[in-house]
Amino acid sequence: MAMRKVVLTEDEMPRQWYNILADIKMNPPLGPDGKPVSPDMLAPVFPMNLIEQEVSSERWITIPDAVMDVYRIWRPSPLVRAVDLEKALDTPARIYFKNEGVSPPGSHKPNTAVPQAYYNKVFGIKRITTETGAGQWGSALSFACSQFGLECKVYMVKISFEQKPYRKTMMGVWGGKCVPSPSNETKAGRDVLAQNPDSPGSLGIAISEAVEAAVSDTSGQTRYSLGSVLNHVMLHQTVIGLEAKNQLAKIGEYPDIVIGCAGGGSNFAGTAFPFVLDKLNGRQIEIYPVEPAACPSLTQGPFVYDHGDNAGYTPLLPMHSLGHNFVPAPIHAGGLRYHGMAPTVSQLVNEGVIEAKAVNQLEAYEAGIIFARSEGHIPAPETTHAIAQVVKEARRAKEEGKEKVILFNWSGHGCLDLAAYEKYLAGELSNPVFTAEEKAKAAEAFANFPKPQLLKSR
Amino acid sequence: MAMRKVVLTEDEMPRQWYNILADIKMNPPLGPDGKPVSPDMLAPVFPMNLIEQEVSSERWITIPDAVMDVYRIWRPSPLVRAVDLEKALDTPARIYFKNEGVSPPGSHKPNTAVPQAYYNKVFGIKRITTETGAGQWGSALSFACSQFGLECKVYMVKISFEQKPYRKTMMGVWGGKCVPSPSNETKAGRDVLAQNPDSPGSLGIAISEAVEAAVSDTSGQTRYSLGSVLNHVMLHQTVIGLEAKNQLAKIGEYPDIVIGCAGGGSNFAGTAFPFVLDKLNGRQIEIYPVEPAACPSLTQGPFVYDHGDNAGYTPLLPMHSLGHNFVPAPIHAGGLRYHGMAPTVSQLVNEGVIEAKAVNQLEAYEAGIIFARSEGHIPAPETTHAIAQVVKEARRAKEEGKEKVILFNWSGHGCLDLAAYEKYLAGELSNPVFTAEEKAKAAEAFANFPKPQLLKSR
Repeated sequence: MAMRKVVLTEDEMPRQWYNILADIKMNPPLGPDGKPVSPDMLAPVFPMNLIEQEVSSERWITIPDAVMDVYRIWRPSPLVRAVDLEKALDTPARIYFKNEGVSPPGSHKPNTAVPQAYYNKVFGIKRITTETGAGQWGSALSFACSQFGLECKVYMVKISFEQKPYRKTMMGVWGGKCVPSPSNETKAGRDVLAQNPDSPGSLGIAISEAVEAAVSDTSGQTRYSLGSVLNHVMLHQTVIGLEAKNQLAKIGEYPDIVIGCAGGGSNFAGTAFPFVLDKLNGRQIEIYPVEPAACPSLTQGPFVYDHGDNAGYTPLLPMHSLGHNFVPAPIHAGGLRYHGMAPTVSQLVNEGVIEAKAVNQLEAYEAGIIFARSEGHIPAPETTHAIAQVVKEARRAKEEGKEKVILFNWSGHGCLDLAAYEKYLAGELSNPVFTAEEKAKAAEAFANFPKPQLLKSR
Repeated sequence: MAMRKVVLTEDEMPRQWYNILADIKMNPPLGPDGKPVSPDMLAPVFPMNLIEQEVSSERWITIPDAVMDVYRIWRPSPLVRAVDLEKALDTPARIYFKNEGVSPPGSHKPNTAVPQAYYNKVFGIKRITTETGAGQWGSALSFACSQFGLECKVYMVKISFEQKPYRKTMMGVWGGKCVPSPSNETKAGRDVLAQNPDSPGSLGIAISEAVEAAVSDTSGQTRYSLGSVLNHVMLHQTVIGLEAKNQLAKIGEYPDIVIGCAGGGSNFAGTAFPFVLDKLNGRQIEIYPVEPAACPSLTQGPFVYDHGDNAGYTPLLPMHSLGHNFVPAPIHAGGLRYHGMAPTVSQLVNEGVIEAKAVNQLEAYEAGIIFARSEGHIPAPETTHAIAQVVKEARRAKEEGKEKVILFNWSGHGCLDLAAYEKYLAGELSNPVFTAEEKAKAAEAFANFPKPQLLKSR
């Protein structure tokens, strides 16, 4: 019997996160005046201890004991050899995945929600606001806040709120309050409703509401939290890749290929950055962020300065972007429907250290079904994008007759996404494409912004 | 930092199931003629290798390698010290739980679905039929059949089919076919529909359809499968308790109290029977199956011979029963809405080896929320019944000032049961009670059947 899972004890967990800012050169975020944003300018939005992490260039940052305590509810996560997937694909490749679906909300998101809640708590904050699209992030932050006795308020895009009522309930079980956005609770929400009472909402509107709710609390006890894109979010997620490295080392393996799906970039970054470090130091390794063909920020969007939100409230970030007003096709992998990409991930693509891939919706679900019928676990729609690329690489390994070692991040389970599988199985899903017209139109959003420099880290 | 999880490697998994029939005396199941049922009489329904297991009195039965291979997709399951639940309850008790929610369908059910699919496969069967109520069992069998290349047909109680469409989709992801029952596919279904085209269905009707579909396949390549009650089902589930015993031994612990929720009895039995063996050998230990107050077969039903299904197709089983026509109140813990109880569990209650407890729906959900807000993971409605009893015992330990060790089975997660939590959080749930009238009426069902003997095993 071949081994499936590589076990780590809680004592063997990483005690530090890896900060890639120590190893790559980055363009700074810019304020409305075109000048670099100072930490103080972010203070009304985030607690200063997280802002310090956002700009830190320390390579290793210690994980606080209180965060370790909560991580251990589900971490270390299993590293699994996908023996049955290998059989199903008849490949000489050895395929390993990190199962991040074992966390209480069912995804990798609490890896950063927990430390963000902790740092807010330590800073004296009582209440955190955020937005959520499909609901994974709002669930994770509600869970994390319940662990530290913080209030959590989630503005959920109204159409998702109505389509996915279970996500709101999940937040409620952990004591989080979830309201559909646009809401009457903020000026931003009321303005939208005044113009269009039936607005389905958008991530841009929900971000505006959450930020407004945080900065307008005159007690100073409320802050805002973001679940991807930012440097400190990528930092916290590196616990995935660091664990994976330890687990692979235990069995004498090292990956030839590392794969993760990418929306804002955090689960990919968390898995890949510890291996990027090795690559920057000369190791041969292929590293692929995988995005949906319908929202191809890395493979079709240029490297520019653009806003992180639709409304233009955030600083200008140096990233691959489709334009901050771009509205992606309604694919069911809601977590991958983001116009931009984390600046760190964008920088690495731009330098050629990692290579972005795009897959279609139908090939993603097809791979998801292959996975569920071999390895058992049902992946989230986002995760199926990573699996689709794994399937391609495993077949390539077979063609080449090579025993490649593939590592990918199984970022979450699909138990709350079965409605999307139902549509796939019923043949009701299609392959939305990103057209040349869309590309040209979307690019108008950043046409007049400053351009980032082309930096080379090594 | 206190340890949370006790890790077992795959090499440390139990290689044999524990068969309690070696250690207790049982009344035999009876046929329509009032005489003990012979194995041959069951042959059209089950494959002979499973029938042999059903009647075996071997104490230890080896788990086949092919079953171990699939178990290792999610086993060994974590044994978790519930440190935050202990804190929330301010108890001196040390509370441990087995997390059976990590399996692909999210519950303990595949522990028996996998060996049942395997033994059918080995016996040359191509297709398995079953019924499902809330959908946990149908999901687990679909998963297991996908692992062994068997067809799986699930008759799902129509009202549940309509209320829980995601369960049908989950089965479909694994290739299982799920139809609402009553269906037009069987005579049993057509007869019901002829009388009442709008029938909401029942577990009794669904069992009839599944059994008919199996025995009427003239190729002889179809068999029926049951997810609880029977001896071989309890046998397969003992992997839970055997693992738990190994895990506790690793840290020098042994439980004072063992708790599991009980509907048909299988997750309770699987957890408890390895400890029952020790108790039969003289060890002091309290062992509690926990049932819903609205369906109290063990605490209010007499020990009688009764049918396992509403239609009276099954042999007469010696068990605690509320009467095979009893329709429990529509509590949301669908997996606990069964009129009878596994004969082995019933026998042990009857002998006073284990002591049944009943909890109300609202105290169950209250305990579920306490658990989710301390330990993170959201339990299935069934599981909350076990947790409610744990909460009581932890508080009793506090009153008595005793450092008791409590072990319970966390039988499944609630990700597909969030609609029930929504109703609880909205204050829309009540405490259905089991009335004296119901009790008297239900008892008519078995009034004229033979009576089982009162046997004493030790």
